[in-house]
Amino acid sequence: MAGRNAFYAQAGGVTAVINATAASLIEACRESGRIGKVFAGRDGILGAFREDLIDTSLESAATLAALRHTPGGAFGSARFRLGEFDDERARYERLASVFAAHDIGYVFYNGGNGSADTTLKLSRLPYLLGLPLACVHVPKTVDNDLPETDCSPGFASAAKYLAVSLREAAADVASMCSTSTRVFILEAMGRHAGWMVAAMGLAIDERGDPPHLLLFAEVPFDENLVMERVSENVARHGYCVIGVCEGLRHPTGEFVAQVGEAVPGRNAQLGGVAPWLAARVHDRLGFKCHWATADYLQRSARHVASATDLEHAEAVGRAAVELALAGRTGVMPTIVRDADDPYAWHVGCADLHAIATLEKRLPAEFIAADRLHITDIARAYLAPLIRGEAAAPFRNGLPVHARIAGHRAPRRLPEASALVESVAAAKKT
Amino acid sequence: MAGRNAFYAQAGGVTAVINATAASLIEACRESGRIGKVFAGRDGILGAFREDLIDTSLESAATLAALRHTPGGAFGSARFRLGEFDDERARYERLASVFAAHDIGYVFYNGGNGSADTTLKLSRLPYLLGLPLACVHVPKTVDNDLPETDCSPGFASAAKYLAVSLREAAADVASMCSTSTRVFILEAMGRHAGWMVAAMGLAIDERGDPPHLLLFAEVPFDENLVMERVSENVARHGYCVIGVCEGLRHPTGEFVAQVGEAVPGRNAQLGGVAPWLAARVHDRLGFKCHWATADYLQRSARHVASATDLEHAEAVGRAAVELALAGRTGVMPTIVRDADDPYAWHVGCADLHAIATLEKRLPAEFIAADRLHITDIARAYLAPLIRGEAAAPFRNGLPVHARIAGHRAPRRLPEASALVESVAAAKKT
Repeated sequence: MAGRNAFYAQAGGVTAVINATAASLIEACRESGRIGKVFAGRDGILGAFREDLIDTSLESAATLAALRHTPGGAFGSARFRLGEFDDERARYERLASVFAAHDIGYVFYNGGNGSADTTLKLSRLPYLLGLPLACVHVPKTVDNDLPETDCSPGFASAAKYLAVSLREAAADVASMCSTSTRVFILEAMGRHAGWMVAAMGLAIDERGDPPHLLLFAEVPFDENLVMERVSENVARHGYCVIGVCEGLRHPTGEFVAQVGEAVPGRNAQLGGVAPWLAARVHDRLGFKCHWATADYLQRSARHVASATDLEHAEAVGRAAVELALAGRTGVMPTIVRDADDPYAWHVGCADLHAIATLEKRLPAEFIAADRLHITDIARAYLAPLIRGEAAAPFRNGLPVHARIAGHRAPRRLPEASALVESVAAAKKT
Repeated sequence: MAGRNAFYAQAGGVTAVINATAASLIEACRESGRIGKVFAGRDGILGAFREDLIDTSLESAATLAALRHTPGGAFGSARFRLGEFDDERARYERLASVFAAHDIGYVFYNGGNGSADTTLKLSRLPYLLGLPLACVHVPKTVDNDLPETDCSPGFASAAKYLAVSLREAAADVASMCSTSTRVFILEAMGRHAGWMVAAMGLAIDERGDPPHLLLFAEVPFDENLVMERVSENVARHGYCVIGVCEGLRHPTGEFVAQVGEAVPGRNAQLGGVAPWLAARVHDRLGFKCHWATADYLQRSARHVASATDLEHAEAVGRAAVELALAGRTGVMPTIVRDADDPYAWHVGCADLHAIATLEKRLPAEFIAADRLHITDIARAYLAPLIRGEAAAPFRNGLPVHARIAGHRAPRRLPEASALVESVAAAKKT
C-alpha cells in the first residue's frame, strides 16, 4: 500500500544537473513503495501557493531518464523566501491547506541557502499548524556556498564549464596576440564568493599557463596592482588572460558592476564587470582587449557537465527520500569528502539550522599570497569535482532535452488569488 | 627524392578546427613524398618576414594528431594584409628572399577573405620577382563569408556552439521566468553578416521554442518593433530569448555597440550589443534581463565542435596539397554541396580572383518576412553543418590540447628589423 504523497519543488537559480536530482528523487519515491505520488510545484513553491501541482506519476520513465541530461529546472523554479510565521501566517496556512488537501506528508525543497531557510520554516508546520510533514532540503547551487556539505550539486558543472572555456579561449588569444588582442577577460558568476572564479584556475596545467590573474569577490579591486600585473604578463607571455568574479568590489565595498540601482532588501543584479575591466585596461595600458560574460551559459552547460557533479546530484536526490522515509525533517543530505586523491565521498546529513541563510565563503587558504591566484589547497579541493564527462545524447547536432508532460493534479481548493499575487510579487533572490 | 619545401601560415581570427586543417595539410605533405619540409610561420606571415619558421618535420605524429582537437592557432596567427607590389616592394622582396633561402616552392595560407587577397598577391611572385612558387589559399573563418565555397571551415563549429548554448540557456530562463529573468539575450560574432546569429535559429525544434527573435547584421535595428515583439513573446511564453549579432546597426548605419572610436582603414572593434540591448529592454519594458557575450568562446569551443566541420577542415587541408602538387596556384579548395538531406559534399576548387576581399553575405532568402527569424531555406542550409559530435580527449576533467615543439629552422638571412617592425605595426583586420 502506497503511503502519503510528496511535494517536490525547485528553488532559486537552476543548474545543469538539478533535473538529475529531480529524476533520481522521483524514481526513489516510486521505488520505495512507501510514497504515493510525487507532486512537483509548477514554478517551484509558487505551484504550492497556486495549487498548481504537476502529477509526476504521469511522467514516463523515458522522460525521467531524459531529465538527467536536461539543464534548467524542468518543473519551473522560483525565487522566493518565506518570512516568519507571525508576519506571514496566511501564507503558512495556504501551504498547509494545499499540502493537506493533497495528502502530502513529505516536502523536498531543492535549492540553495535561502531556500534552506524556507525548508526549515516549513519543517515547523507540524508544530505551528499541526500538519504532519517531513521536510528535507535538497542541495543545489552553482554558487557552492551551502555550509555543511563539501560541495553543492551544480557548482562543479559550472566550474568545469568555466575552466574548459577559459582554456579554449586562451588558446585563441595566445595564437593572435602578436598582432591582435593582448588581454582577454572571462567573467564568472558569484555574488559574494569567488568559488567559480577560483575554478578557472584549474585551467592551468604548467607554470605560466592562463589564467594569469584571478580577481575574486573576496579581494577588493586594487586597480594599480592589477594594471601592473597585466603589463608584466603581456611582457612575459605576449598576452594576459584574466578570470573575474561578477561580485568584484572596489575597496569602498561597492560592486564594480551593478545593473541599475540597489533596492533595499533585494540582491543587486550583477553582471558586466568584464566589459568594465576591459575598458579600464584599454584606457590605462592601451592594449586591445576582448571579454566574455557567460552568464546563464555557465549554469546550464549540461553538454559539458561534470560526471562527478552528476553523481552528486543524483545521490542527494535519492538520499533525501531515504532521510524522509527514516522520519528525518529539517535536514539536508550532504556530500562528505573522504579523500582528495583518489577522490572518495559519501552522502551525509546536516541539520538545516547550520545551513539556512548562512553562506560558505571561499576559505582564505584557497587564495594565494598575491591574492591573484589559487593555492594548491584550492586545486586539491576543486580538481576532483570537475572530473569525468557526462555525455548526453545529441540529435541533429543539438542536445536532446526532456519536455515534461506536466499534467496538473485536479484542484481541491478554492483559488487564493490575492495571496498568490502577493507571493509572486514578493519574490526575492 | 623529396621535393621543394612548403610554407604554411595561419591568418586572421582562428577557429576551433583550423589546427585540424594544419595537421591534415602537414600529414598530406609528408605522405606525398614530393614535398620536403613544411615550415610553419610563427605568428602567421610575420614568421616569414622575421624568418621565424617552425620546422614541422620535428613535430611528432602524436602532436599532429593532438592538433585535431586543439582550438586556437597552434603556430600563431596574424592579422595582416599585403598591399600592392608598387607600394610595398620591400615586403614582397623580403618574402621572396626568405622563401628562396629555404627552398620554399609551395605556400599554403590558411585564412579568410582578406587573407585570400594576400595569397592572390603572393601568387604573382613568379611574375613579379621570378620566384617559382605555387600559392594555395586554405579556407577558414567563423564568419562564413568566403565566396565560392558552400561554407567556411570553422563556421559550423561556432554555429553549433551558439545553437547549443542558446538552447541550454533558454531552458534556464524558461524555468525561472515566473519570478526572475524575463528576457535573455545572447550575442554572436559577425561584423557584417548574420551567419552566426542565423545559426542560433537551429535551436528551435517546435513552434514557440526559443530563440524568439533574431537580430541580424543585415536588418537595421527597429527599436519600436523589437520592443513590441519582446512584449508579445513575454505575454505568450512568459519569457523571450533573443539572439543578436555584434554587427547590429541603427537605421543610420552606425554600429549599435562599437568599442572606442572608429579608425579609418581599420575595422572597428565590436562587442557589447547584448548589454546595450538589455538596458534598452529594461528601460522601456521594465523586464529583468540577462545577457551573455560569448566572444572568443564561440570560435574556440572545440569541446562541442561539429564533426561535419572537422571533416571539412581536414579535407581542405589535404586538398590544398593536392592542388599545389597538381601545379595549381592562386586557387582555394572549396566545399561543394551535393545535397542537403542526406547531406553530401565534395571538395572543389575556385580561383582567388572570385574570392579575395569579397564577402558572401547572408542570402536575403535566409531571413524571414518579419526579418526576425530564419527561413526554412536557411534551416536546410545550416542544419547539416552542425551535425555530428567530434569528441576530443579530456584529462582530469579538462580538454587536452597539443603543445607544439616549435623548433625554429636555422636562419639563413640577415635580420630585417625595420621592415619587420613596419609589418607588425601595419596589422589590419
